[in-house]
Amino acid sequence: MQTTMEQLVSLAKRRGFIFPGSEIYGGLANTWDYGPLGAQMKQNIRRAWWQHFIVQNPYNVGLDSSILMNQQVWVASGHVGNFNDPMVDCRQCKSRFRADKLIEEAASAKGEDIMVDGLPFAKMEALLEAYGVVCPDCGKTDFTNIRQFNMMFKTNQGVTEDAANEVYLRPETAQGIFVNFKNVQRTMRKKLPFGIGQVGKSFRNEITPGNFTFRTREFDQMELEFFCAPGEDLKWFAYWRQFCYDWLLMLGMKKENLRLRDHEKEQLSHYSAATTDVEFKYPFGWGELLGVADRTDFDLRAHATHSGENMTMQEEGGEPFIPYCIEPSIGLDRLFLAIFADAYDEEQVGENDTRVVLHLHPSIAPYQAAVFPLSKKLSESALKLFSELSTSLSVDYDESGSIGKRYRRHDEIGTPFCITYDFDSETDQAVTVRHRDSMEQTRIPISEVANWLSQQIKATS
Amino acid sequence: MQTTMEQLVSLAKRRGFIFPGSEIYGGLANTWDYGPLGAQMKQNIRRAWWQHFIVQNPYNVGLDSSILMNQQVWVASGHVGNFNDPMVDCRQCKSRFRADKLIEEAASAKGEDIMVDGLPFAKMEALLEAYGVVCPDCGKTDFTNIRQFNMMFKTNQGVTEDAANEVYLRPETAQGIFVNFKNVQRTMRKKLPFGIGQVGKSFRNEITPGNFTFRTREFDQMELEFFCAPGEDLKWFAYWRQFCYDWLLMLGMKKENLRLRDHEKEQLSHYSAATTDVEFKYPFGWGELLGVADRTDFDLRAHATHSGENMTMQEEGGEPFIPYCIEPSIGLDRLFLAIFADAYDEEQVGENDTRVVLHLHPSIAPYQAAVFPLSKKLSESALKLFSELSTSLSVDYDESGSIGKRYRRHDEIGTPFCITYDFDSETDQAVTVRHRDSMEQTRIPISEVANWLSQQIKATS
Ligand SMILES: [Zn+2]
Ligand SMILES: [Zn+2]
Repeated sequence: MQTTMEQLVSLAKRRGFIFPGSEIYGGLANTWDYGPLGAQMKQNIRRAWWQHFIVQNPYNVGLDSSILMNQQVWVASGHVGNFNDPMVDCRQCKSRFRADKLIEEAASAKGEDIMVDGLPFAKMEALLEAYGVVCPDCGKTDFTNIRQFNMMFKTNQGVTEDAANEVYLRPETAQGIFVNFKNVQRTMRKKLPFGIGQVGKSFRNEITPGNFTFRTREFDQMELEFFCAPGEDLKWFAYWRQFCYDWLLMLGMKKENLRLRDHEKEQLSHYSAATTDVEFKYPFGWGELLGVADRTDFDLRAHATHSGENMTMQEEGGEPFIPYCIEPSIGLDRLFLAIFADAYDEEQVGENDTRVVLHLHPSIAPYQAAVFPLSKKLSESALKLFSELSTSLSVDYDESGSIGKRYRRHDEIGTPFCITYDFDSETDQAVTVRHRDSMEQTRIPISEVANWLSQQIKATS
Repeated sequence: MQTTMEQLVSLAKRRGFIFPGSEIYGGLANTWDYGPLGAQMKQNIRRAWWQHFIVQNPYNVGLDSSILMNQQVWVASGHVGNFNDPMVDCRQCKSRFRADKLIEEAASAKGEDIMVDGLPFAKMEALLEAYGVVCPDCGKTDFTNIRQFNMMFKTNQGVTEDAANEVYLRPETAQGIFVNFKNVQRTMRKKLPFGIGQVGKSFRNEITPGNFTFRTREFDQMELEFFCAPGEDLKWFAYWRQFCYDWLLMLGMKKENLRLRDHEKEQLSHYSAATTDVEFKYPFGWGELLGVADRTDFDLRAHATHSGENMTMQEEGGEPFIPYCIEPSIGLDRLFLAIFADAYDEEQVGENDTRVVLHLHPSIAPYQAAVFPLSKKLSESALKLFSELSTSLSVDYDESGSIGKRYRRHDEIGTPFCITYDFDSETDQAVTVRHRDSMEQTRIPISEVANWLSQQIKATS
């Protein structure tokens, strides 16, 4: 059975994964707040990325740069000039739309799959007419010409609101890495190849955000910029393309819901030598999950030119050169949504019953285990076990309702192991561990539970 | 010897803890970027907070709400009306200043310690004159009247720049918690008392940011809002006041550099029943490190009034009431700076030598251990040990220079344990562990290193 967006949004809200932002004030245009379980799960994914891409990787180091940066960063990067969406207004109802999206939807309704991104505006205007696109809000066909809309959020810092104090909210974390390239290389005494990665908020003033957390104006990125010598770039591009794909599988994602889409030469940005999107089969169809791009020396060269800073490196006996850069870029919120959708299942249990279960990898689940006393009389000993486990793991304690009800409650939030402390535990010093996926039960000595759990969480599913 | 700000800034930059933001473009008004070691250390502090305040605490749950929220949130919270600094201009040179700071500095220069915050503007203007305050930039005495300056950053979301689309960058994470109070309480089936905590960026358009990372316009907060029944609030206030102080000691901070300052009745905000600042002895003097406040029912009541949402809870047989709230609020960047300063030391070694050492707690240090091969011939085995350890810890691998030089390099970045793989290791399957603080060395079997390190990191110093 195909999971629907409604099922995901409903579970997310019902169990405290994701709430609509500013809900008590009627919300705010597709903003979302991660509730207790969502916040923990999001943090687990972020931590897994950091551990796998940065800490365990001998080539790479981390960074945490500011959201507010000097305006010149965005002039150099091309965002001031080129980070635009094609915007069109309906003259009748004053609604605004992305012209490329209107055309793609109209084409898609006719079963055609066309790529509009990057076409000249005159061409897009012709396509609007050719497909007979009508305004989705009022049904009229009275559009303005297409204009550029820059997607960076602007604000003013300091005490005067003049142009000199205008700053942008960063639209990507990557540029914070490029401007710190030399500082990091020098202080960490790095030789090529090496990478710099960071996780943090970015902001894009999308004309039409939507599809739950798939496209939001505020989002978290996990980006790695991996620098290498020119000529080595395609080799490292292939390496990181595979690395990212393998990581998704390690997180427990299903192969059949993932596909790699290599961009054709015509689709590539002018500076990119190769780009691959990893796509996921969302409830609304295939869509981008992450991208890996060979950005050549485009960014470092642009910053060298604009800032006058020397961005070259030199190998023994060779000429100085500007390193090439491979960028695996992952949207954390989008990956969260994909993992959430991928793990969701409604299973038939027996004849007349279904259970909702999230088959989350134990390292990603909000709770890695839950501790239940069989009876409230046993709560003291059960709480002792809970306290021990929660020094290093995220664990829930639950003593309300029947054990069966507690299992179901934890199935739908993805808790992989439910640990019941019963009356026998008092004498045999063991507990029953029930497995979420198989629903099988095992008896394990209390003294071994912590180590056993650590092993299970490390093991890939 | 008193540590100076220059020593901290210099070490931070030299070793990749903190770089000036946007440095290659001449910087941007007191923004800072955390380099590889700073990013890891900042993350370790954040993780310690999350583990101690949220995961291990059976009362509390986490949240991760948006930076961009509905305008009405800030109307209700009082930030639109009252989140102002008293601003004064010099008519001669057009510089702008915070009037309260000018007065406090002038008083402090005369050895007087006065509190100007909250005084009426007429009173402040009188004090400016009484202390004979001159413009710090041009030396003249020609100030304008004092005016309100709202410290929230404003931006526009959506495709039109009209008032309806104006949004603020949140000046605190706390309001994201209050507006989600009911959603969290309901989905997590919480009874009083319980807390909701989150970590994230906040933005304040400070007139005069400064003192390195002590006061910046963009910063990370770690805030807990702990809800309880009215009448229980002073008990829980005392609990969290002590909890925060004890946590700082657990992180290895020195008692003599910390002090608790309870606000006098006259200093309290109108809504607060009690407030305590924990202050730290920074190189520039005593300053706020964190605050614990009894906010009564002020925030939930304000949001109930403005939104119409029912914010009450009810205990069996009782009347519905709006919960009271205790708020321990910690600036992550400020805590980082305090820990960094607190740990910094220049020690005399022998007759003619000094070593710079950061006495960081093992759970906070950027690297929890470093692995050295005694000779590059041993790098294969040493790398194997590095790989094993780095699956769960943050570990460095270093094979350049003498062992003595490597020790010094790791002393000044706070690595608590340096592990040398030598020629004997090949036969006795053991390594030498050198302790940063005592400089003592111990021989430990390779098979026990991982467990031994985990124990050391958990143990409080
Ligand atoms: Zn229309
Ligand atoms: Zn002046």
